[in-house]
Amino acid sequence: MVPAKDVLVGIDMGGTSLRALVVNARNEILSVQKEPTNVAQKSDGLIRDLAGMTEDVIRAAGLRKSQLRAVSIGAPGAVDPERGVVYHAPNLGWDVVPLGENLKKLLRVPVFVENDVNVGVAGEHALGAGQGAQDLVGVFVGTGIGGGIIFRGELYLGTRGAAAEVGHTIVQVDGPRCGCGNRGCIEALASRTAMERDVRAAIRAGEKSCVLKLMEERGKDRMTSNIIQRALKKNDPVMRRVMKRAQYFLGMAVANVVNLLDPECVVMGGGIAERLGEDFVGPIRKTAYENFLRRHDAERVRIVPGALGDNAGPLGAVVLARKRLPK
Amino acid sequence: MVPAKDVLVGIDMGGTSLRALVVNARNEILSVQKEPTNVAQKSDGLIRDLAGMTEDVIRAAGLRKSQLRAVSIGAPGAVDPERGVVYHAPNLGWDVVPLGENLKKLLRVPVFVENDVNVGVAGEHALGAGQGAQDLVGVFVGTGIGGGIIFRGELYLGTRGAAAEVGHTIVQVDGPRCGCGNRGCIEALASRTAMERDVRAAIRAGEKSCVLKLMEERGKDRMTSNIIQRALKKNDPVMRRVMKRAQYFLGMAVANVVNLLDPECVVMGGGIAERLGEDFVGPIRKTAYENFLRRHDAERVRIVPGALGDNAGPLGAVVLARKRLPK
Repeated sequence: MVPAKDVLVGIDMGGTSLRALVVNARNEILSVQKEPTNVAQKSDGLIRDLAGMTEDVIRAAGLRKSQLRAVSIGAPGAVDPERGVVYHAPNLGWDVVPLGENLKKLLRVPVFVENDVNVGVAGEHALGAGQGAQDLVGVFVGTGIGGGIIFRGELYLGTRGAAAEVGHTIVQVDGPRCGCGNRGCIEALASRTAMERDVRAAIRAGEKSCVLKLMEERGKDRMTSNIIQRALKKNDPVMRRVMKRAQYFLGMAVANVVNLLDPECVVMGGGIAERLGEDFVGPIRKTAYENFLRRHDAERVRIVPGALGDNAGPLGAVVLARKRLPK
Repeated sequence: MVPAKDVLVGIDMGGTSLRALVVNARNEILSVQKEPTNVAQKSDGLIRDLAGMTEDVIRAAGLRKSQLRAVSIGAPGAVDPERGVVYHAPNLGWDVVPLGENLKKLLRVPVFVENDVNVGVAGEHALGAGQGAQDLVGVFVGTGIGGGIIFRGELYLGTRGAAAEVGHTIVQVDGPRCGCGNRGCIEALASRTAMERDVRAAIRAGEKSCVLKLMEERGKDRMTSNIIQRALKKNDPVMRRVMKRAQYFLGMAVANVVNLLDPECVVMGGGIAERLGEDFVGPIRKTAYENFLRRHDAERVRIVPGALGDNAGPLGAVVLARKRLPK
């Protein structure tokens, strides 16, 4: 029997799908739900979806809504956690949406909002691959590359809430153009989007690759983590080369982060890391270790794949909510 | 009248010179001394020099040795502040020297040891250009490029004491070889050593420059900050181009640091910054602002030259000592 008002719901809002889970006071998952994100509607519609999903996932866990203490959300883009406002989330088509306030009106419980990568990193730190580390950096590789910094056990947001933008650190001055407008950001060299760009360029240049065929077979117009995994399994030469190059750049970016912050642990998260695990992280770790200034004790810095998969975000969201709720 | 036991001596140990100063309880400088570093002798000899210099600078301030509460030293290289040990300081020819313990035996007061760049950054934070900032990064450009991080008001050392190595963050994968063995570190692109390499290469390639003549006139075998300043005053085309390129790379490195850490303030220190001030920092700031991910409030991040000059190190050393001494 779960005591009343001790249940939290964590939600990860992605541009493609929403994922909600319910936890008890020990952060044990009681039920999980996933549904596609309907971004065609206005923000009010999507917020109503979140409210409905919260009620569904509580019911699916065999609980009553009166037991819900708070909801905590990881949202893509620029977020003001103090005010629960999503400032700019191009994946959702949102600009300045008071998500916290509006969802609270529907659910009548406290609602917390934080950046989606930050909640993922907080989840891996509290309950996943980074447990026990005082100082930790998370690097999440997906369509973009996001980051999060745990500093002395707490999420570090920076002066303007703009910290941990690992994806927009430049490792190749005058390199390829990034979505942010700059050149040579690690996101423009090693994200899934950058890898797809390089695979397509190689195919256009006449190289043989099964990637486009795999995408067609599976009805995908983008090179998903699943497609990458399948192409690597088939030993696709273009995919292998592009992946190797991305891992090399990621190793440099991780070395930069470690040379600056000297954390105990770097967690590599996101879909590719989840699917490929050590096959993805191993070569990144090798390059990183070679580029640490302090090589003699390089191995004291753990570089590991995330352990929580898609639950990292919603679990991190509830962990952060607990820190903000009165004891 | 200074009350007994309220006087601190701060010392900056450079490979070229030693600088010691005395402060009262309000960190006001009562006297300063500078002498060349005799690195030909063994570590014991240099430690005796430090003891003698401490006694001299106290006497020069009109004080008695009994009023000395502690000595605090900024040492070049890898330092263990907990144990007062200098592990590796190639500029001094030192490997594993228990500086704190040995100097304490001679002076019979507590001796604190910290990395020289860290004390410089702590000085600028507490008493110089970075006053009032909770989160600050210092970037010191000299023969190498060093860094220091102030996080939530305190110096941040990292898990292995290896944090803040701004100079060894890579901004040009496969760029020029750095002294650390890697390629494309900002130190290999924009330190005084890198600038001298580029100036000499241009001259060898037949370009006209007054730099070598200035060095000869002033009896210098290296391109010092003073030579750089003189060459720029004479509008030397090679020096101007090399400086502009170094500033561009430094702007990128500062942008990387800000995109990762989002500090309130970045202090640019070292000899060149001190001599050239805004002429040095202005173009760095411009490039950095253009490469911040959050450009709309770029100007909230102050990027400024250091204000304390050569006193930053010894003053930072005494500030750190005060935090470690019992109240």
